[in-house]
Amino acid sequence: MNKQPLKIVFHGQNAANFRLGFEALIGPEHTISDLSDPLDLPGERARYEDADVVIGIQLKEGMPVPRQARLFHAPAAGTDAINTALLPDKCTLANCFGHENAIAEYVMAALLTRHVPLAQADQDLRQQRWTYWAGRPAALRTEMGAQTLGLLGFGHIAQTIAHRAKAFGMRVHVANRSPISHPHVDQSWGLDQLNDFMGSADAVVVSLPLTPNTLGLVNAAALAAMRGDAWLLNVGRGAVIDEKALYECLASRQIGGAVIDTWYQYPTPNQTELAPSKFDFGALDNVLMTPHMSGWTQGTVRRRQEALAENIARLSRGEALINVLHGPLG
Amino acid sequence: MNKQPLKIVFHGQNAANFRLGFEALIGPEHTISDLSDPLDLPGERARYEDADVVIGIQLKEGMPVPRQARLFHAPAAGTDAINTALLPDKCTLANCFGHENAIAEYVMAALLTRHVPLAQADQDLRQQRWTYWAGRPAALRTEMGAQTLGLLGFGHIAQTIAHRAKAFGMRVHVANRSPISHPHVDQSWGLDQLNDFMGSADAVVVSLPLTPNTLGLVNAAALAAMRGDAWLLNVGRGAVIDEKALYECLASRQIGGAVIDTWYQYPTPNQTELAPSKFDFGALDNVLMTPHMSGWTQGTVRRRQEALAENIARLSRGEALINVLHGPLG
Repeated sequence: MNKQPLKIVFHGQNAANFRLGFEALIGPEHTISDLSDPLDLPGERARYEDADVVIGIQLKEGMPVPRQARLFHAPAAGTDAINTALLPDKCTLANCFGHENAIAEYVMAALLTRHVPLAQADQDLRQQRWTYWAGRPAALRTEMGAQTLGLLGFGHIAQTIAHRAKAFGMRVHVANRSPISHPHVDQSWGLDQLNDFMGSADAVVVSLPLTPNTLGLVNAAALAAMRGDAWLLNVGRGAVIDEKALYECLASRQIGGAVIDTWYQYPTPNQTELAPSKFDFGALDNVLMTPHMSGWTQGTVRRRQEALAENIARLSRGEALINVLHGPLG
Repeated sequence: MNKQPLKIVFHGQNAANFRLGFEALIGPEHTISDLSDPLDLPGERARYEDADVVIGIQLKEGMPVPRQARLFHAPAAGTDAINTALLPDKCTLANCFGHENAIAEYVMAALLTRHVPLAQADQDLRQQRWTYWAGRPAALRTEMGAQTLGLLGFGHIAQTIAHRAKAFGMRVHVANRSPISHPHVDQSWGLDQLNDFMGSADAVVVSLPLTPNTLGLVNAAALAAMRGDAWLLNVGRGAVIDEKALYECLASRQIGGAVIDTWYQYPTPNQTELAPSKFDFGALDNVLMTPHMSGWTQGTVRRRQEALAENIARLSRGEALINVLHGPLG
């Protein structure tokens, strides 16, 4: 063992979520500094510029540059706020997953809500009304397990959802760029057959990342291809679904409804409260709207801490890193 | 094929739930009559007494007797309202399952509700409040998959729940009369070690039937053995959990809470609205109370229709019946 001591900085509020207990996951030879988002407290800039490892989600023009960094590690999957042109040549950019179990629980919870009216049944029984009592024809529920789930995209998240969906007995359909052969998938389509796929499912879950190819991929035509009682869920990135087309499709009750977790507008430090779209989704009763929360669990934090610690240990021992997105160059 | 034509009666409102489309599941040689609960319309009593097959959930003193019946088939699991002493000697009593998928969806929906605050998140975001946004330390959720599920009883229902729980990554504990060795079970206890089992899980699901041995089995001591933040679910029969002990345990916040679907008092034709217990569960905020609804889905009805039709076909061909509980005698 020839382990090299590393200077590690946690940059900003987001990274701070992954800080608690991190010492216990890495060797005592390393040092850790906690830095604010603006890097304007005494000594912060120097520690940032001198760090071997930066854990953070942002690197943009006008910020100090981590000149000594050999690893810039996002504690998240998305790295769209990290400008790789500003990274030193010798620096590797890596990201983290570990959110797939959390997102799968969010998705299955949202899907089951469509079938099991727990809240209404509870409210009624507290008023001594046995509305949903077994034996009443009007109380008969549908079963999630009898339905077909469509997964648009088939990465970590969708595969984790598919595993749970199959345990419930669901049929699983997938649309993906490359062909899919997987024990949990019953049928798959290419993205050039998107509309056929969209019409094949009782619920469609979008888990695609945002790229030039996926921007607005789910457009008015794709939404029009969905079944009239189908539900659309988005846990990928908001802009994969065309904003105006989604709003109009829901407002005109063209489909059963939507569960939307990823949006078109987000709070900023200067505006902490705002609507998630320029369209008034909040006025619709056929949408369940949540604030980009699906992956945010204690388990996600712990799994990402373990992934960060693993890459720090590998760097320290001079071994190949995992989850590499970019570099080193030259 | 030597199929004997059978006279089939559907007796009462409960049986009528299984009537729609039943002709298509049996041969055209059989006849079907639909009879009211009191059997007091013209000709009903004669058709009941002359039936080869009765589909119903009730046979008690003072009712006509189906003297010719060779099969009395409950379209339900429970047959406690059928007095077997009143059945003709040559008559077989059978029941139906087919509710296990439905009950498992109810249980997983209720468990996930404890971890994923969909309703509150939706309510907040409609007010432009991003309360549960990823990155906010206070918004971190627990994961169901990281928890231990305790199953008290391990029949059809519990096995179906276990399958789904394992797909989420849960640890599965079982307490059962006979020892359990099953790929979805991590650890099991006998009923004589009930309190050890009760203390081993984050959520305990009761799916036991009501028998002299299970009446009040989950008593004050068993509840006291539960973890302080654990949840108790009952989808078996109400009286398996001691009524007073359950109320006091919840009122004093001794455990995290309860999801109760099976109760201590039920509506009657003369009292269609009533509280499900003599204790005021409706005043508690740590109970989700539902009206014995967990198994009541279109899928359950279809699977039970298929089971009824299968036994009618077997009887017609003189073959051995399935799901037999009693008889024939002599």
